Amino acid sequence: MQDHVCSPGCTHGVTPETEKDITEEFQESRRRFLRDAMVIGGGAATLGAMSMPAGAFAASASTSPGAGNASHYYIPASVETVLWGYFSKSAKPVVELNSGDFATIETLTHHANDDAERMVKGDPGAESIFYWDAQRKGVDRRGAGPMDAKIGAGAGAGVHILTGPVHINGAEPGDVLEVRIIDVAPRPSGNAAFKGRTYGSNVAAAWGFQYGDLLTEPKKREVVTIYEVDATGERNWARAVYNYRWTPQTDPFGIVHPTIDYPGVPVDRSTISENHGILKNIRVPIRPHFGTIGVAPAEADMVTSIPPSYTGGNIDNWRIGKGATLYYPVAVKGAMFTVGDPHASQGDSELCGTAIECSLTGTFQFILHKKSDLPGTPLAELHYPLLETQDDWVLHGFSYANYLAELGPNAQDEIYNKSSVDRAMRDAYRKMRHFLMTTQGLGEDEAISLMSIAVDFGITQVVDGNWGVHAIINKGMFPARET
Amino acid sequence: MQDHVCSPGCTHGVTPETEKDITEEFQESRRRFLRDAMVIGGGAATLGAMSMPAGAFAASASTSPGAGNASHYYIPASVETVLWGYFSKSAKPVVELNSGDFATIETLTHHANDDAERMVKGDPGAESIFYWDAQRKGVDRRGAGPMDAKIGAGAGAGVHILTGPVHINGAEPGDVLEVRIIDVAPRPSGNAAFKGRTYGSNVAAAWGFQYGDLLTEPKKREVVTIYEVDATGERNWARAVYNYRWTPQTDPFGIVHPTIDYPGVPVDRSTISENHGILKNIRVPIRPHFGTIGVAPAEADMVTSIPPSYTGGNIDNWRIGKGATLYYPVAVKGAMFTVGDPHASQGDSELCGTAIECSLTGTFQFILHKKSDLPGTPLAELHYPLLETQDDWVLHGFSYANYLAELGPNAQDEIYNKSSVDRAMRDAYRKMRHFLMTTQGLGEDEAISLMSIAVDFGITQVVDGNWGVHAIINKGMFPARET
Repeated sequence: MQDHVCSPGCTHGVTPETEKDITEEFQESRRRFLRDAMVIGGGAATLGAMSMPAGAFAASASTSPGAGNASHYYIPASVETVLWGYFSKSAKPVVELNSGDFATIETLTHHANDDAERMVKGDPGAESIFYWDAQRKGVDRRGAGPMDAKIGAGAGAGVHILTGPVHINGAEPGDVLEVRIIDVAPRPSGNAAFKGRTYGSNVAAAWGFQYGDLLTEPKKREVVTIYEVDATGERNWARAVYNYRWTPQTDPFGIVHPTIDYPGVPVDRSTISENHGILKNIRVPIRPHFGTIGVAPAEADMVTSIPPSYTGGNIDNWRIGKGATLYYPVAVKGAMFTVGDPHASQGDSELCGTAIECSLTGTFQFILHKKSDLPGTPLAELHYPLLETQDDWVLHGFSYANYLAELGPNAQDEIYNKSSVDRAMRDAYRKMRHFLMTTQGLGEDEAISLMSIAVDFGITQVVDGNWGVHAIINKGMFPARET
Repeated sequence: MQDHVCSPGCTHGVTPETEKDITEEFQESRRRFLRDAMVIGGGAATLGAMSMPAGAFAASASTSPGAGNASHYYIPASVETVLWGYFSKSAKPVVELNSGDFATIETLTHHANDDAERMVKGDPGAESIFYWDAQRKGVDRRGAGPMDAKIGAGAGAGVHILTGPVHINGAEPGDVLEVRIIDVAPRPSGNAAFKGRTYGSNVAAAWGFQYGDLLTEPKKREVVTIYEVDATGERNWARAVYNYRWTPQTDPFGIVHPTIDYPGVPVDRSTISENHGILKNIRVPIRPHFGTIGVAPAEADMVTSIPPSYTGGNIDNWRIGKGATLYYPVAVKGAMFTVGDPHASQGDSELCGTAIECSLTGTFQFILHKKSDLPGTPLAELHYPLLETQDDWVLHGFSYANYLAELGPNAQDEIYNKSSVDRAMRDAYRKMRHFLMTTQGLGEDEAISLMSIAVDFGITQVVDGNWGVHAIINKGMFPARET
């Protein structure tokens, strides 16, 4: 593995040139996917020299380890570095890093097998994870369900390939973890036949909002659409390549999947029919982002990756891309940050069940805000995932703010029967009121008036069990904060 | 009344200079509020000379009366030109105009009496409409309810002051009416003490999403917040002036209004307490638009202005401002276009029940698309209000697409018990699917995939009985249409 030691003045991920450098340096490490030797950095980068944008919150500045040194880790996606379908407070960390450190993390879409030629073949990381023959799977457990589930180990109770967990040294329940997304890059196809291109899959799935509410027969069909994205990042749009209707697939263990009920099932191409010439000449704007990104919940050892919650997770907000910063309430020791479910693009609602599911590599910086430093800062009392973009603050409401605590021991199943945009709107209202009253010091009447005239509520997703409504408020309307 | 005859090269409303001209020319007419003599134009303006942006739909171009002459009408707001709280297919039109004609229409906020000094006094139009003493009201009927309702004539079943109806000659059920919003300007305070300023009112009302879900006592309070907007249009933000808690008000007829249950009730200033210094230094971005804008429904003679429906109405989408174009299915002879409920700004959801309710004057152009010309065009089969902005198409879903038809004879009351964002999301999905399949020629699977990856669903409002979800799709992704 080629080492990279961050040194003073290191600007990894900060300019296009250094992005290219880092990509080349990490090329080698990516082929190895070794879980136990991924510390790339550990050197002496001065944070101040990284020209990181100052956090909008004074708290960010005051608690960031400005005087310290930062390490920069590289975490490839491999069987050794991913959890398939669940968050876990007790999983072995892929890396333990300090506040201020950086990590470049590969994430793979769990839909890569929808077109394995384009998204798995020739990519050692993907091949290791998706490996499945009559004897074994590269990753056996897929989901937080029982290992002996008839449908497959883990029961598909959770579907996303998540890279991590990343253990943040010193993080404890009550702290706040700030995660800055420094860069996001598409993962090129490993197949020489598709050199220079990246692909993604959109599935109109059984869990989509449209399922059973179609005009044309069969009304309960699932449809996979393969999209092509430019791997160089020069083109800001995607195009459809072809689509096909899902047919019952028999996995290598002999289980039949009449619908897409278990992640990563290989598709027997002889059973499907490709329709080309679809969405002709239509340029779909891309919005690369991470659908699932968060810290581990405290409520259970293994938590399905599908419903989002107070610790983030499968928020599925396309605004969680390059330049965005997330703030999470830390629920367990080490925070256990995990990321995956990469998307090339998605609309608010993720209507049919998925985005353009497309492998991406992200560079992140982690800043730990200790509980004792929070009182009097805008991060005090943060009990939900908060997103900050260049222009806005974005809060996430869900049908249940913390479904694991609210729905009892069967919460991970029960949540799918309780989905409601109406409830998520209620939660988003209460969270935005809290945010304005605590971080902006407004009275309740002031907060409510402002929410009605200046906050935009949108439908994040209606497909993840715990449905989401986000609330967006422009930062520009507030006077400069005293530091 | 000073006449203005549009002549070739007339650019009324098209540049800032001509906007100023038209304002001055119409100054005189505004003081008179004469219903029967408001034809300003009728001359020979060549449409081509108005440099109107070409409609994004080929249909717009092919059916616009490009070779004809256009008249430009001015409709002041007065007791003679408004319907308070209802749409009506049988009301006497304030003007009858032809396809291609323009109208500059004054609209008044029904919340002007929340601060009559700032929003009524010295403004003859507003004074005539809000007039109310022990003997008579300037406008007696307020709402579509019974005239002998205890609470007041019309029962407040509908609250918006709507200017109109505008009869479009030749319009018949099955046609489509295109309404282009050429300009929107704030209405300056008529009170010399507030010269050069415009004011608006935001009410956290009993019909708001927050009502009964407050942190602080009393949990069922209503709060009025007065905002100041720059009347010159140079400043793109508003600021709060003060707020007060609604107290029971006795109207001049002796009826007590413990809550804001009837529109236009004068506020006895001795009973309220103004809180100044609120929302200090906060600059609220303005988004001037018309909350209620639409054509008359066919289902009843008088229809409350509150719930939006297939004919538009109280859509409450802040994107319906300058530069926007609306397409409505015509439901009755003459279309009977009506507009009001002006807003200086609103967020998606209009959470607390109102926007910054602020009188505005709009300039509109009307283009009639005849039913026989629609087949084969993107406007064929249009059965819902469609909004087009510079960048996007925006479709409006409601809890009930046509609540008047769906909920039976008591629909105008019943709708308030049936509000649901979930249902509105379902309706928005179906409408966007229809739009993509008919106007873009996509198959159902193509439409659904595109909706999931490129359409943003947002919450328009949760306060108008028939709750709304809008769906936004960027026009730029589609290839240029053959003309």
